[in-house]
Amino acid sequence: MIMKNMSEYLKKNGIKPSLQRIKIYEYLSTKKNHPTVDQVYNDLLQEMPTLSRTTVYNTFKLFLEKKIIMMITIEENEVRYDANTKLHGHFKCENCGKIYDFGISYIQVDEDVLNDFLVEERQLYFIGKCKNCLLDK
Amino acid sequence: MIMKNMSEYLKKNGIKPSLQRIKIYEYLSTKKNHPTVDQVYNDLLQEMPTLSRTTVYNTFKLFLEKKIIMMITIEENEVRYDANTKLHGHFKCENCGKIYDFGISYIQVDEDVLNDFLVEERQLYFIGKCKNCLLDK
Repeated sequence: MIMKNMSEYLKKNGIKPSLQRIKIYEYLSTKKNHPTVDQVYNDLLQEMPTLSRTTVYNTFKLFLEKKIIMMITIEENEVRYDANTKLHGHFKCENCGKIYDFGISYIQVDEDVLNDFLVEERQLYFIGKCKNCLLDK
Repeated sequence: MIMKNMSEYLKKNGIKPSLQRIKIYEYLSTKKNHPTVDQVYNDLLQEMPTLSRTTVYNTFKLFLEKKIIMMITIEENEVRYDANTKLHGHFKCENCGKIYDFGISYIQVDEDVLNDFLVEERQLYFIGKCKNCLLDK
């Protein structure tokens, strides 16, 4: 998505496309690195010296409300964000800390319990060791 | 599981079965209410006036290391615990806050990405509105 399209995309989702919002959404949707607030702040600071951590945090909050990003709470005390809101899973390597996306074709749940429930969000987290870390041993 | 069996179960998993540990595991495995540290502390305090929040926290940490409980990080800033370590999902109602367990028969993931990865833990979180809250409207 080029910058003009990002601006249109934000507008379409009810978000006023300020430069900071566009840059933050661009970061998230092109890097695909599941960053924390601090990571986005540090990486964009040089380009936008007036950026604050609070702005990044509030922008994510707005994006979440408008459902154009999702929150990843795979581990205690660490919140990450993802512009990919289609159903997919996250694998976190407990050795190197890297988060990998993986596709999910199908989840078969016990129908009885969730009958007549409204499911608005689905998160699937796997934790373990990635191939690179297993090979390094 | 009666108390003697709980003690045996802890021993079998390499945990010295102190009274506090037994009581905390008993709470978790019989109440099935996915409590936070504070909840367990508040509920057990009357019965065990010498209990501290730190003891509850450290006991959970030990249980996690020994893999007899799992951690639920369904939402930012809220960690819950579950003595059911078999694969199952958690649904959190964003209205009443209640967490429901549901069974999972099958998860079909895209094999390519996780080929040769070691998956040690699987967490499935659904968020939405439960039947009771939908009916109340």
